[in-house]
Amino acid sequence: MDPLVLFGRVLRQLRKEAGLTQEQLALAAGIERNYVSLIERGINQPALRMIFKLAAALGTAPSEILRQVEAELKDSS
Amino acid sequence: MDPLVLFGRVLRQLRKEAGLTQEQLALAAGIERNYVSLIERGINQPALRMIFKLAAALGTAPSEILRQVEAELKDSS
Repeated sequence: MDPLVLFGRVLRQLRKEAGLTQEQLALAAGIERNYVSLIERGINQPALRMIFKLAAALGTAPSEILRQVEAELKDSS
Repeated sequence: MDPLVLFGRVLRQLRKEAGLTQEQLALAAGIERNYVSLIERGINQPALRMIFKLAAALGTAPSEILRQVEAELKDSS
């Protein structure tokens, strides 16, 4: 399965666990609101700096987000 | 410090530990040779799928590469 789709799912899950709307996450990460929606839907591909910005806004580590994506990849294979 | 620069350093270190040239890593990851050089020099920013391709070619996990970047970030702050 495409890591992009799984990243979107993990991001949505972490955002909801943090009790944030897409708008609040975008504001906290300093990015465009619709960009969060595009990433969550697996349409836009986040680059390295974006991953760091999103992780900081969610209060987690970038490696932790990717670790969860890897776990979902394993489950889906 | 910019995670991009640190990612380049960690990538170079992991590539050397794996005993690969830039060309060999690029071939294994299915990407352009000069792209490895551009990332290692902190010039090009890898996106999510590229991070997964590079990790697979190095036989490590994407989250492990980012964990090492985070450790360097901590050391540099």
